[in-house]
Amino acid sequence: MIQGVVLDLSGVLYVGDAAVPGAIEAIGRLQNSTVPYCFITNTSRRTLSMIEHSLQQLGFDIVADDIFTAATATLAYLNDHGLIPHALVHANLQDDFAQLQGVQPNAVVLGDAAQGFTYDSLNRAFRVLMRGADTPLISMGYNRYFMESDGLSLDLGAFTAALEFASGKQAIIMGKPSKDFFLQAVDKLGCEPQQVMMIGDDVESDVNGALHAGLQACLVKTGKYREGDEDSINADDCLLAADIAEAIDQVLARCH
Amino acid sequence: MIQGVVLDLSGVLYVGDAAVPGAIEAIGRLQNSTVPYCFITNTSRRTLSMIEHSLQQLGFDIVADDIFTAATATLAYLNDHGLIPHALVHANLQDDFAQLQGVQPNAVVLGDAAQGFTYDSLNRAFRVLMRGADTPLISMGYNRYFMESDGLSLDLGAFTAALEFASGKQAIIMGKPSKDFFLQAVDKLGCEPQQVMMIGDDVESDVNGALHAGLQACLVKTGKYREGDEDSINADDCLLAADIAEAIDQVLARCH
Repeated sequence: MIQGVVLDLSGVLYVGDAAVPGAIEAIGRLQNSTVPYCFITNTSRRTLSMIEHSLQQLGFDIVADDIFTAATATLAYLNDHGLIPHALVHANLQDDFAQLQGVQPNAVVLGDAAQGFTYDSLNRAFRVLMRGADTPLISMGYNRYFMESDGLSLDLGAFTAALEFASGKQAIIMGKPSKDFFLQAVDKLGCEPQQVMMIGDDVESDVNGALHAGLQACLVKTGKYREGDEDSINADDCLLAADIAEAIDQVLARCH
Repeated sequence: MIQGVVLDLSGVLYVGDAAVPGAIEAIGRLQNSTVPYCFITNTSRRTLSMIEHSLQQLGFDIVADDIFTAATATLAYLNDHGLIPHALVHANLQDDFAQLQGVQPNAVVLGDAAQGFTYDSLNRAFRVLMRGADTPLISMGYNRYFMESDGLSLDLGAFTAALEFASGKQAIIMGKPSKDFFLQAVDKLGCEPQQVMMIGDDVESDVNGALHAGLQACLVKTGKYREGDEDSINADDCLLAADIAEAIDQVLARCH
């Protein structure tokens, strides 16, 4: 029985600059049902309203309130723990974190700063980490690399690993495949984890991450999916679907 | 019986901008003996001639030929293995590596590039690493951080760890405490490891590194030394000396 749905965005709803065929209508069917849903993404280069805008440009009727990002999770974590962040994040996200910053930061937040990663910006973050034994390193992802139009590029995980190595601290990861991140999304839906289906194209980050957090999972064969990926799934009863349209049909048939 | 001496520079011959009291005369006594010696350092921000110049400014009669650096070891390794490097190194060392570079690099060399570490420079190095499964990552050090006048700063190890994490490769470390690095220095003296005494102020990098490589070791209580460091020595018969002057006297008394 499924009582809620969590969906990945890139590779599931769209690939590159185009919606996956049938995806817009499939999301419409989900939205016309009574099943609560939300979209989750690790991207930390764009604000919620930028993500909303680009989804609407593609033809999806999705609003920012339906999207849960690693940045949203990080802001909630900082608030819940009363932490003042030193934020090394993308220029697009600096305003979101600026409100929480203070002269005596007691946490370091890492996002995908892209060209914002320099020796000096990393060293400033390092020094804040070393100032307090309890100062946590909070990172919006732990991916090694991602595919860009001109080749593979370093992802946030590499810079997280650099600061972990230098500081001797283990980062708190906000984003897939972190269990806490999935549970925060489930909480947003008002469901229990085992009632919620995660739909994604990344067998590790989406599918095994969700299964580890106690959710159900469906792997779609679009986006990042490569033949044989299903062999790496850590469960026997994971759903497989050709694409998001088939996935939504399977999920809605199991809802009530 | 000691037939050769290897010495660390910073913290042993000088601390900050000043020679350790008695160090200039002690090095003179070593130079007037018939015992072969060399100085080793991990620094990869300065060329041999820059190091020579600053030692001579301090009053030491030391020439570049007597100094063995991680960069020297790296250049030798590249030559021995016929490797064409993509070098992400400090501006001061770029000329040294430029001679070996080519259009199809098959190795990545990391030095302490300092402000030369940017997203783009690290990403270029990452892409070279990912192009060939056999392309090695060679790094001139693995230290986490070092002390600067205004606080702790990220050292080369952090950036090495970032590229190791992203590429899934383990770096070949050229510099202390690497066993190979000590053995190259010993080889330069024409001695067997067990005949050679290493004198240093860093219990891990100098002393335990040398002992692991089969050398003898002497810890001096200057520079980086902190009370109790001797408790971390991995041997029972390591020499202890108040400073380089006492260390040289102990070593020369054991030479013949």
